[in-house]
Amino acid sequence: MTIESTLFMRAARRQPTERPPVWFMRQAGRVLPEYRAIREKYSLLEISRHPDVCTEVTLQPVRRFAMDAAILFADIMHPLVGAGVPLDIVDGVGPVIETPVRAARDVEILRPLDPEADLPYVLETIRMLKRELGDATPLIGFAGAPFTLAAYLIEGRASREFLRTKTMMYEAPDTWHELMTRLADMVIAFMRAQRAAGVDVLQLFDSWVGALSRNDYVRYVQPYTRRIFAALAPLDMPLIHFGVNTATLLDAMATDGASIIGADWRIPLDRAWTIVGQDKGIQGNLDPTVLLGPPEVIAREVGDVLDRADGRPGHIFNLGHGLLPQTPIPAIEHALATVRERHHAGGR
Amino acid sequence: MTIESTLFMRAARRQPTERPPVWFMRQAGRVLPEYRAIREKYSLLEISRHPDVCTEVTLQPVRRFAMDAAILFADIMHPLVGAGVPLDIVDGVGPVIETPVRAARDVEILRPLDPEADLPYVLETIRMLKRELGDATPLIGFAGAPFTLAAYLIEGRASREFLRTKTMMYEAPDTWHELMTRLADMVIAFMRAQRAAGVDVLQLFDSWVGALSRNDYVRYVQPYTRRIFAALAPLDMPLIHFGVNTATLLDAMATDGASIIGADWRIPLDRAWTIVGQDKGIQGNLDPTVLLGPPEVIAREVGDVLDRADGRPGHIFNLGHGLLPQTPIPAIEHALATVRERHHAGGR
Repeated sequence: MTIESTLFMRAARRQPTERPPVWFMRQAGRVLPEYRAIREKYSLLEISRHPDVCTEVTLQPVRRFAMDAAILFADIMHPLVGAGVPLDIVDGVGPVIETPVRAARDVEILRPLDPEADLPYVLETIRMLKRELGDATPLIGFAGAPFTLAAYLIEGRASREFLRTKTMMYEAPDTWHELMTRLADMVIAFMRAQRAAGVDVLQLFDSWVGALSRNDYVRYVQPYTRRIFAALAPLDMPLIHFGVNTATLLDAMATDGASIIGADWRIPLDRAWTIVGQDKGIQGNLDPTVLLGPPEVIAREVGDVLDRADGRPGHIFNLGHGLLPQTPIPAIEHALATVRERHHAGGR
Repeated sequence: MTIESTLFMRAARRQPTERPPVWFMRQAGRVLPEYRAIREKYSLLEISRHPDVCTEVTLQPVRRFAMDAAILFADIMHPLVGAGVPLDIVDGVGPVIETPVRAARDVEILRPLDPEADLPYVLETIRMLKRELGDATPLIGFAGAPFTLAAYLIEGRASREFLRTKTMMYEAPDTWHELMTRLADMVIAFMRAQRAAGVDVLQLFDSWVGALSRNDYVRYVQPYTRRIFAALAPLDMPLIHFGVNTATLLDAMATDGASIIGADWRIPLDRAWTIVGQDKGIQGNLDPTVLLGPPEVIAREVGDVLDRADGRPGHIFNLGHGLLPQTPIPAIEHALATVRERHHAGGR
């Protein structure tokens, strides 16, 4: 067996598979009691600085649920952490930036990322994980996308309306473009280093991009998404581009260079696939809140996603966003069983 | 001149007009210094209980900006206020419910709304406004839609993920459907009473519905939207159905009985119109954040909305959501001037 012959990698290359591979965003973390036990001793960023602990946390869901892929336990903010931007990941709040970026001079002090020097522990974790996972389970690496990183830098923390971020785009486009260029280059350096350390797949998380109009995406964000995927194209690996609330951006995202587009639960999966085109893979897209419901609702809604994918090559089953902390373990197991049963029910 | 011959009503009936009519959601309120002066003496709900003050607040933007329609100053929560649900509208937070609805017994105590007895001051305001506005400017009445009212009732306040609301839908569908039936009937009673008092147009605000998957909208919400619009159809008046983040719901919403569909800024207006069909009007859809930008960005983005509408009958120019409190008055004036100039530039 080689890594390329795993269910996940074959689907990610849009080859026919017996059933869709399945993993869940945030599968490593808050929902698992074995993770919470570790979190009593380490903060989120401390876990990532201890490759042995971080390897363990990454492997926990693979062990417990036999997920078809592992995802490196890390935060979308790691490129900024590595570049020395003072920030914290606060429980129940998310990333909080100590000194938000508000002007050109704040952008000028953002230095490039040197992953081997700045984030050696992340790369060491990847190397440990690859030894543990062998050729049985692919490892997904990732980073936050420039828009989402910029939004955190400018707002200081998660926002509903991103007023300061959009205002910078409109009022200070030169500052905005300089910021996005620097962030894109950090992401490129980080993702290349992850690949060199051994990850099999890379996912770009643009969590907040769905706040933008299509015009704003095309003008202020797309050039940097394209810059990243163009830089990664020579690596010849599956590249996933994910955002929340992107129904109106999917056609634009589909031209940005990723081979697999992530969709949230708002858009029916078959429509998303029609929009991005059959030459792309699709990852998604169960509403994570469904996993707070009873088994019959979970089975119904997982079944609906599978029906809409209809066994087409290139579907990676996932949620439309990350697992909610309240998700009961049996709900995850029930969803996974429903996907895996589809194999026997005549999936191609 | 009759009210039906105004620019707004002709567009709302999808008749050709010289230019699109324009009004802005939340035009009455926070952005106006003359409103803030009144708010120093009265809370939001107090204003609505004083028809003379409420009439003044409703007229302020019509006077200052010559808006093509007035919208009754009220809150989407008024049906619940009238039915005696203890709640407050907290500055910077929005509606806060004293005792959130969590179980069937909480639903059972929700009583029907008797608008003449429960909300006489709102109806008196409408009558005063109609005397003031005459046949020159139409008056828009409105209410929150059942899903949004239910979400506030269940969550207790605005939410990002609506976990409790969705969990009730999935786990206690009978309770959910009973709640939605009662809320729909409150909205119907309130809207009929507003019509009887004189409003020319009614808008149903489903602010939070965009959190739902299409499946959930169809199963848990659509029957109640349809119930409302079916009950209002005999009134033969323009009915607007608005929600935020509805790109994936627009085709469903278009079958629910409204004659005009509101779209937020995420979907290009021409695409929204293609989805809802040319037999519907479209209201929208400038990103309110654009009004925090410089004049050239405002002109560019207003122009883009107008270009996408392309002079077709049935376009009502508006924002994609309410005016932001920080919006400078000159930005509003610049946007309005850009819409009005389109008249001379060859709009049909």
